[in-house]
Amino acid sequence: MSGRLFVVGLGPGDADWLTPEAARVLAKVTDIVGYGPYIDRVPLRAGQARHASDNRSEIERARHALGLAASGGDVAVVSGGDPGIFAMAAALFEAIEEGDKTWRDLSIEIVPGISAMQAAAARVGAPLGHDFCAISLSDNLKPWSLIERRLRAAADGDFVIALYNPASKARPDGIRDAFALLMQHLKHETPVIVARAVGRSDELIEITTLAEADLSRIDMSTLVIIGSSATRLLPCASGRPWVYTPRSVS
Amino acid sequence: MSGRLFVVGLGPGDADWLTPEAARVLAKVTDIVGYGPYIDRVPLRAGQARHASDNRSEIERARHALGLAASGGDVAVVSGGDPGIFAMAAALFEAIEEGDKTWRDLSIEIVPGISAMQAAAARVGAPLGHDFCAISLSDNLKPWSLIERRLRAAADGDFVIALYNPASKARPDGIRDAFALLMQHLKHETPVIVARAVGRSDELIEITTLAEADLSRIDMSTLVIIGSSATRLLPCASGRPWVYTPRSVS
Repeated sequence: MSGRLFVVGLGPGDADWLTPEAARVLAKVTDIVGYGPYIDRVPLRAGQARHASDNRSEIERARHALGLAASGGDVAVVSGGDPGIFAMAAALFEAIEEGDKTWRDLSIEIVPGISAMQAAAARVGAPLGHDFCAISLSDNLKPWSLIERRLRAAADGDFVIALYNPASKARPDGIRDAFALLMQHLKHETPVIVARAVGRSDELIEITTLAEADLSRIDMSTLVIIGSSATRLLPCASGRPWVYTPRSVS
Repeated sequence: MSGRLFVVGLGPGDADWLTPEAARVLAKVTDIVGYGPYIDRVPLRAGQARHASDNRSEIERARHALGLAASGGDVAVVSGGDPGIFAMAAALFEAIEEGDKTWRDLSIEIVPGISAMQAAAARVGAPLGHDFCAISLSDNLKPWSLIERRLRAAADGDFVIALYNPASKARPDGIRDAFALLMQHLKHETPVIVARAVGRSDELIEITTLAEADLSRIDMSTLVIIGSSATRLLPCASGRPWVYTPRSVS
């Protein structure tokens, strides 16, 4: 008797962004699998097993969850943000494709969540108000040349750009290389939003420019949004200006 | 005495995707402004005024809401999906920039929501599992040449592509022109997801290819996702295959 597997997006930090669907799934499953800090965000329930794992072993975590479901458990794999956007859902399907054939028969449901770029955008205005792209700067699983190709294409298309996984201890120079490349294509005064730990108590959001951004402050908890040629600042009474990308292009 | 203005994302259709933050805001405001079908999704409350408007007059709707807030109301402008992604938030800041100077002093909060591409992706697997871009095919406010430039850049960068506003009565040929352009750059068997009315009772999701997609069935309620070169199908027991884009590129 096979169980069911849910890949649940917790949104970025604040429980106020957890959807009713996600809350309902988390309340009914027998097992919760995920990176420790994400599991810590799920309220404890009697009779529910919690399986915390290291953040870097996404495939192993997916295999663990698949095994539990194949043994009859109702399992939630928890993911920050939206599991479908640079998170656990893709890793799960990779594990299924490479794994035990019976895993393809499991009942699987992806439960979407608010992703970091949406939360960061909401805090500052509407920077994603027009065509945009989302790029992960992690080169663990793709060559840096492909990241460069995509950054160049994003600049060619005059897209707003959301950068996920902008820097880590293993790759401190990725964000510097990315900004250096973009500086060759975009105006130096292009608005940049550096959003750290959005929705958490240590949230820190800075509005700067491509040339002036302090890249040393960017880490794996940071989401970076780089404007298009149309993205603009709108002064407001309360101090920090709004940042938005209008729908119309003149 | 000025009121407050909230731009609230209702998510795509299903109330199960409405965040607690959005529900709380909708329960406390004095006025709700929005396109009729969106307002209809908000539970009626005594003492709350509802101002329905035509879908096409986004700027007028924003001005109406700003005027109500400037007169002391606590106003929610409701938006389908995420207000920051091809929805009301950008229109609001345009209205502020062009409008009454006192509007810049208003207290404004953007409340994010699940966007259509996230809901569509969750239904079929993890097609947005790697770098992607989102493009609106509406040429009401931007020239078609810019849309072509962005489609070409998205193909050059081998991004997964989410197409919003793919067709309307006024622009029945946009989606045909977009597919014709993409056919020149991408493999004809590239996976395509056509997701209509996601999260609503008449939801209809089709998995097809760039060459075989039935474009006559695409309308304004449809979200289209076009895979990258890495996007693949994974057969599953229940009938429809999963579609996902792996994190690794070989």
